[in-house]
Amino acid sequence: MKLIDGKKIASEIKTEIVAEVELIKKNGGKIPHLAAILVGHDGGSEIYVANKVKACEEVGFKSSLIRFEDDVTQQELLAKVHELNLNNDIDGFIVQLPLPKQINKQKVIEAIAPQKDADGFNPVNIGRTVIGLPSFVSATPFGIIELLKRYKIETSGKYCVVLGRSNIVGRPLSILLSQKGKFADATVTVLHSRSNNIKEICCMADIIIAALGQPEFVKANMVKEGAVVIDVGTTRVKSELTKSGFKLTGDVKFDEVATKCSFITPVPGGVGPMTIVSLLKNTLLAAKKEIYK
Amino acid sequence: MKLIDGKKIASEIKTEIVAEVELIKKNGGKIPHLAAILVGHDGGSEIYVANKVKACEEVGFKSSLIRFEDDVTQQELLAKVHELNLNNDIDGFIVQLPLPKQINKQKVIEAIAPQKDADGFNPVNIGRTVIGLPSFVSATPFGIIELLKRYKIETSGKYCVVLGRSNIVGRPLSILLSQKGKFADATVTVLHSRSNNIKEICCMADIIIAALGQPEFVKANMVKEGAVVIDVGTTRVKSELTKSGFKLTGDVKFDEVATKCSFITPVPGGVGPMTIVSLLKNTLLAAKKEIYK
Repeated sequence: MKLIDGKKIASEIKTEIVAEVELIKKNGGKIPHLAAILVGHDGGSEIYVANKVKACEEVGFKSSLIRFEDDVTQQELLAKVHELNLNNDIDGFIVQLPLPKQINKQKVIEAIAPQKDADGFNPVNIGRTVIGLPSFVSATPFGIIELLKRYKIETSGKYCVVLGRSNIVGRPLSILLSQKGKFADATVTVLHSRSNNIKEICCMADIIIAALGQPEFVKANMVKEGAVVIDVGTTRVKSELTKSGFKLTGDVKFDEVATKCSFITPVPGGVGPMTIVSLLKNTLLAAKKEIYK
Repeated sequence: MKLIDGKKIASEIKTEIVAEVELIKKNGGKIPHLAAILVGHDGGSEIYVANKVKACEEVGFKSSLIRFEDDVTQQELLAKVHELNLNNDIDGFIVQLPLPKQINKQKVIEAIAPQKDADGFNPVNIGRTVIGLPSFVSATPFGIIELLKRYKIETSGKYCVVLGRSNIVGRPLSILLSQKGKFADATVTVLHSRSNNIKEICCMADIIIAALGQPEFVKANMVKEGAVVIDVGTTRVKSELTKSGFKLTGDVKFDEVATKCSFITPVPGGVGPMTIVSLLKNTLLAAKKEIYK
């Protein structure tokens, strides 16, 4: 069994990005610039955005944090999005979710110029992903594909089960994995809350991606000997073993599953660390105009 | 075994659309108007567009045919698309494919306003389909879902195999069938040219959608007793039995498969007749502003 070390890969990618930024600087190019819009003071969102800003600094990007209070109107928020769309210094930007209830989240997402949509949530980018055109892919699927690449995990012709059909993980990942190309060309089945025979279908899988948000859902008796298991789950579960009283728990019962796997991601330290570097990668792609030429 | 009669259903839907158009007229509303852009004189395209125009007339829609010669420039074509986007009398329009090689097909498709994209090929509509927002769905997947509805074929929790991952049939259909909702919620596997164990996986299927364009690919030994089989294939195969010397052949070996099925679509007369009514339905949805409110 080989552990997929997301922390190590994320760190390697950061080093690669630093080198790219150095090169851009040396050639007198424009430093990549990511902006983040943060509405209100939700604890989780504050931390996520702070981590994104910090990651930008680490790799030498410029970053901007734009704050609104909880009572921001839809109109104000959309006006800021339009402003960022037109601001040539900003290569990519994100609007941190969730948004307060007076805001139509979808309207905001669709207002972001696809060329600057570093989160890859705009339907234009999702649609382009589906038909195999260059596109910004959202952070978690992007990060998982990157892990498969870095560990040279063969996917062509493999039977791959994606547990969960969320718009930001399961669905886009299932599409990416079954598309034509390298680190794709898999035979993909999407399982979800209405699926039957989940255990039997998982037992057929060469690759299992668990992204349903149910702690320790995938047990050893659902996994074929030698399978690759990618665990996207990160649920805070009560624990007496930690100081905080909580433990980050994946969708896979790691201890019993790991022994059967060829590769497995731990939680934490597997998929998680890849999400922020995926955002950095998207920002770099946006700055280099590699998606929309 | 029950035959799914696409011709009959298509005719029923046309009658329903006629009634809707009558009602719109009676209430002094605007008659739905579909425009089609046809470039060059490709025989197939001429026939397809003529059939679309004829179908519009049959249900009481207004239709416009806009012709360009083979040597049209990208700029001229895009200018026409923009003109149609802005023309308030036109509710929806299509650009008949294929286009000559000097034209960037994707640029043209992306120039069509999503609100008027009756073919559902614009990435915005594809992306919205993926995330479960109201959208224009392309004709063949739309027609197939409609057939399942009309024959009250249960899909929730069923194991569904889609053979083929094309952008206009297999891919969107696989997404629609595995989404939340009625006539969806299926467990979907997409099989394609790189898939292994195709026979074994097909044998598990409650529903098989064959959309790979390989005549008589699906044999009896690939189909479970009682399965539902939808045949999207329409390949012209040489035949000594027809006057034309050709026979339209599906992706399913109908004679031997039909006896095992609970439901099956014939070729011709199954999925085929549904495609044009799907285009009419999209035009009606566009005219009624039911997708983009």
